[in-house]
Amino acid sequence: MNYGTLYGVGVGPGAPDLLTLRAVETLQRVDVIALPRSSDYGSSTAWRIIEPVVGKRSNQERLFLTFPMSKEPARLRQAWDAAFAKIGERLKSGRSVAFATEGDPSLYSTFGYLLGEAPRRWPGIRVEVVPGVSSIAAVPAVLGAPLADGLERIAIIPANYGVTDLVTILNTFDTTILMKIGSEMPKVIEALERTGLLHKAAYVAKATMPEQKVTTDLRAVRGERGDCFAMIVVARRERSGVLAGEVSPNAALAQR
Amino acid sequence: MNYGTLYGVGVGPGAPDLLTLRAVETLQRVDVIALPRSSDYGSSTAWRIIEPVVGKRSNQERLFLTFPMSKEPARLRQAWDAAFAKIGERLKSGRSVAFATEGDPSLYSTFGYLLGEAPRRWPGIRVEVVPGVSSIAAVPAVLGAPLADGLERIAIIPANYGVTDLVTILNTFDTTILMKIGSEMPKVIEALERTGLLHKAAYVAKATMPEQKVTTDLRAVRGERGDCFAMIVVARRERSGVLAGEVSPNAALAQR
Repeated sequence: MNYGTLYGVGVGPGAPDLLTLRAVETLQRVDVIALPRSSDYGSSTAWRIIEPVVGKRSNQERLFLTFPMSKEPARLRQAWDAAFAKIGERLKSGRSVAFATEGDPSLYSTFGYLLGEAPRRWPGIRVEVVPGVSSIAAVPAVLGAPLADGLERIAIIPANYGVTDLVTILNTFDTTILMKIGSEMPKVIEALERTGLLHKAAYVAKATMPEQKVTTDLRAVRGERGDCFAMIVVARRERSGVLAGEVSPNAALAQR
Repeated sequence: MNYGTLYGVGVGPGAPDLLTLRAVETLQRVDVIALPRSSDYGSSTAWRIIEPVVGKRSNQERLFLTFPMSKEPARLRQAWDAAFAKIGERLKSGRSVAFATEGDPSLYSTFGYLLGEAPRRWPGIRVEVVPGVSSIAAVPAVLGAPLADGLERIAIIPANYGVTDLVTILNTFDTTILMKIGSEMPKVIEALERTGLLHKAAYVAKATMPEQKVTTDLRAVRGERGDCFAMIVVARRERSGVLAGEVSPNAALAQR
């Protein structure tokens, strides 16, 4: 069967001008833009990001797909089955579909599941990933502080995984990025207090969006339920800088 | 003093159409584009990326700055001192300067050092970071495989730091990204063999550039000196997917 091409398009962290030229070109060209949203009646953040640049086009379909903010596999599977049916119908008729995903399609993105399933459901289909500016690039830009340079190592931890070994990670890595914080916020702050790194942490929610929130006083956001777009960056900055090479790797390890 | 604004502009991994709209607008608007290169006679990769989009402009200066590929602090410090003098001269005359940096300015970028020094050298200066598509977004896009989703954790390791504990990291994290591989390639491959993860690794050099190289047969690149743009991604994929929530975090930890 001659399927239409499926694209996973990263639309960046929130500011429309952080779309790439390739994302804009792809979103303007495809027959269908698939737009995830979290409820049937809510708006799509991806659409809010791209609308000022791409706009509504008479010859292009906007296909809104609802993925509830749920951890229940049964509910998620149902949502995905409906999404696959709708996307598949369009691909089978030869139409190209761009699945617009916030940030970058390769990093904790809904698109990952579609990418994995596509060749099974639509054998021989052409899938193209358009990389985007991820939140781990946007957050340090907003903070005006590099994530890592020199000899620094980075750990990226989705906090909803569980944060039982967070103290070990904070002590082992130069920079720790906590994503998907949700209800784990108090435990994260406790680990930061325990390691004496609370003053090296910054909290950023909705980076580059109009509602952007930045604070280095994490105690003030203790009660906050970190949403999907919130991130905590903890940077020790002991081995950063272009001259970090002056410390020999072994010496640096021994210092720990 | 009224300094011109200093921008750190991420120009993406290599393909010119992976520039963001904001990067293009900034690079077209500033008085000076500062372009790093590794020798006085070599070309600048950043310029190669932006030239097809931005082009040469009669009212705009291209300031090439040489940073030798050296680990010697003395040589690097000398190069930086020269760069600071040249950039400072322009900023002091009120001209805006955009330092173009491959990938994203916050991740192992030369710009980090400039960002740290700027407020010390030019008090009150306005610095703006324009985030870009980093290689850690471009490489999985090229591979057509997500870096991480579901409950997965990521470690980013500059291999030139030393890879003595790489086996532990490979066994602890779901996805490990090795950057700045250089002469550590044989040791990296040895660690992958020791952990039985060689078949889960992919090597990508110069992602999205015309010279792009991708292989999942790492033994074939054992002799290669991984350059600045080369990366190895090792993804276990045990807890990925939208339904990863079915495994409880504790059960997943216990399985290790």
